[in-house]
Amino acid sequence: MSATSPSSAGGPDAPPLTYDQAGVQYDLIDPLKVAAQRAAAATAVQLQRHGFSEVAASRGESAYVIDVGPFYLASIVECLGSKALVADEMQRLTGRSFYDAIAQDTIAMAVNDLITVGATPLAVQAYWAAGGSDWFSDGQRAQALVQGWQRACEACGVAWGGGETPALAGIVEAGRIDLAASCTGIVSPKQRLSLGDALAAGDAIVLLASSGIHANGLSLARKLVERLPAGYLTPLADGLSYGEGLLAPTLLYSPVTEALAAAGVSVRYSANITGHGWRKLLRHPASFTYRITEVPPVPPVLAFIQQHAGLDDREAYGTLNMGAGFALFVPAAQADQAVQVARAQGVGAWVAGRVEAGDKRLVVEPLGLTFGGEELALR
Amino acid sequence: MSATSPSSAGGPDAPPLTYDQAGVQYDLIDPLKVAAQRAAAATAVQLQRHGFSEVAASRGESAYVIDVGPFYLASIVECLGSKALVADEMQRLTGRSFYDAIAQDTIAMAVNDLITVGATPLAVQAYWAAGGSDWFSDGQRAQALVQGWQRACEACGVAWGGGETPALAGIVEAGRIDLAASCTGIVSPKQRLSLGDALAAGDAIVLLASSGIHANGLSLARKLVERLPAGYLTPLADGLSYGEGLLAPTLLYSPVTEALAAAGVSVRYSANITGHGWRKLLRHPASFTYRITEVPPVPPVLAFIQQHAGLDDREAYGTLNMGAGFALFVPAAQADQAVQVARAQGVGAWVAGRVEAGDKRLVVEPLGLTFGGEELALR
Repeated sequence: MSATSPSSAGGPDAPPLTYDQAGVQYDLIDPLKVAAQRAAAATAVQLQRHGFSEVAASRGESAYVIDVGPFYLASIVECLGSKALVADEMQRLTGRSFYDAIAQDTIAMAVNDLITVGATPLAVQAYWAAGGSDWFSDGQRAQALVQGWQRACEACGVAWGGGETPALAGIVEAGRIDLAASCTGIVSPKQRLSLGDALAAGDAIVLLASSGIHANGLSLARKLVERLPAGYLTPLADGLSYGEGLLAPTLLYSPVTEALAAAGVSVRYSANITGHGWRKLLRHPASFTYRITEVPPVPPVLAFIQQHAGLDDREAYGTLNMGAGFALFVPAAQADQAVQVARAQGVGAWVAGRVEAGDKRLVVEPLGLTFGGEELALR
Repeated sequence: MSATSPSSAGGPDAPPLTYDQAGVQYDLIDPLKVAAQRAAAATAVQLQRHGFSEVAASRGESAYVIDVGPFYLASIVECLGSKALVADEMQRLTGRSFYDAIAQDTIAMAVNDLITVGATPLAVQAYWAAGGSDWFSDGQRAQALVQGWQRACEACGVAWGGGETPALAGIVEAGRIDLAASCTGIVSPKQRLSLGDALAAGDAIVLLASSGIHANGLSLARKLVERLPAGYLTPLADGLSYGEGLLAPTLLYSPVTEALAAAGVSVRYSANITGHGWRKLLRHPASFTYRITEVPPVPPVLAFIQQHAGLDDREAYGTLNMGAGFALFVPAAQADQAVQVARAQGVGAWVAGRVEAGDKRLVVEPLGLTFGGEELALR
């Protein structure tokens, strides 16, 4: 479970793979994001026309929250990203469709974000934009997508409301599909709202296990394939191929958060550990020190990526979930109960650390790592 | 305003352009849609876990509705489609970005569908999936998209909650963007629910003006360009170029539906006239005859398409909105008031016909057209 050293899988001279090399240039996207965030914030006053108001603290959080009186309304749209490209390549190599897993990944992207504000997800809409009508003619693949989508909705207790299945030749590449999900839920009772104003020094950090890479870091994972002679079929330590390991579906955490609410565990804040890896533990806007004293086991596929991409622990934990897919911040007195509730839902969980007064930083003691507050700029 | 005959713009031997020729093959998509609809319907029972239930009549309608007690919750995700390709080509030809209009189109696709169930739209989420990070480096275009999105939200009285701006190289084509919007709203008071159970013979059909092609029929419109020597710069009857005419932003109808509710006009059913053109007037599941006695003026860009694509009236009105972007079914005694309310919001409106007992069909008397109920299969 401890992180391995940079290796020479790509030959003795192979440099570590960085995220920039993997093709994502956040500096080009970020000015637009800032402009969009500013414009979006300016529209909040529109809700007054209807007698409602936004919950301003949800701006910059993972889901948007409106106070509609008897409860809060939460909504979100989330993209799968490039993970479908791995499924396409694995289908070519093995003949098997992995789109049932891909469906779960897509729903997890939306649901796992929506629940961070304390919401119960109620309805999911499917957005399946294909590169052409012929995408849907592969019956096995289409059926896997439909069945996986249905099962993931059932696991989360949400209704699949409908969606869009456009054929977008000229926009989406031929043979590809752009997958996204929107999710709507409510925070009820309103005390379940977990935007973090109750977070305090002394609170416990409970980490929930991941199943693997989930759906973030795939650009890097796909880039790594170029260094592997056997590509996606390279065996991992657990006997699965690299491709199969990557395609383990993202865990759905809403059964845990619903069970926590039912058990009376008060979740004061939570973070979905996606892009930026463990730096997401720094998400809360206030200044606290997050001290991690126990590090969960690293799934074989992530250990493999760290080793073969030559990532040091700082790069690995600052980019990938490294075995922790979701973080719950709960009162210390309820930490053990939170772990038990999560495990009863079949999700690994650990009391991994605590919130302390102090400068904004994340200290991962077992690994000797510290991330400063400035290393996560989401707002 | 009457439809013109097939013309010989493409040369004396040019056959009429059909939708199949324009590249959309519904027969390949439809089996998946049916499987997805069936799987989605099976998830409705999940809501019982939370003490809620779906409004089953919303299945097959334009937005999904859940009964959450004090009001109904409505949600939707909608895709822009291929209209952005026209904006890209027009930017190449004129140097001007039309993405402010494109933003409004995208929001209109979601909002104009959401309001058909009687909902007040409250929150919109943006889904902007680009072919690469570099899409966002065109500052003028990105700014137009942001500003247009904000203005459209303000026009609809919705809050822009946030969204996703992924860079999806390998899935979305380089230099392109896949645009969609999700929208969440509530039906309040619950009597505003307009799923059509109150629709009755004798009700009036009020048609609301369109601004042009809106965002449906663009595959056909783009195919037509190949027949035009001056392409998108071909002048229309109103002096605009064909490209400019196509890019007139879709009208937003939620200000009208909100004003109707405020004025006490009871909307018994409504239909957003998008794909399938006026056949959408046949959307209600029951058997009625819809008799149109007044046909709104045809926007120049649509008259141009009909003429140059060589569409007869049946093809034109069965595919395009032909000047009517939205249909309201209201009690006959409130029809004139509905028209006045819409016009006060700056939207052209006409008492265009009535609902009659009889076989399911649409009769457009001024054009001598009849569409049978079997000509629209949405469920």
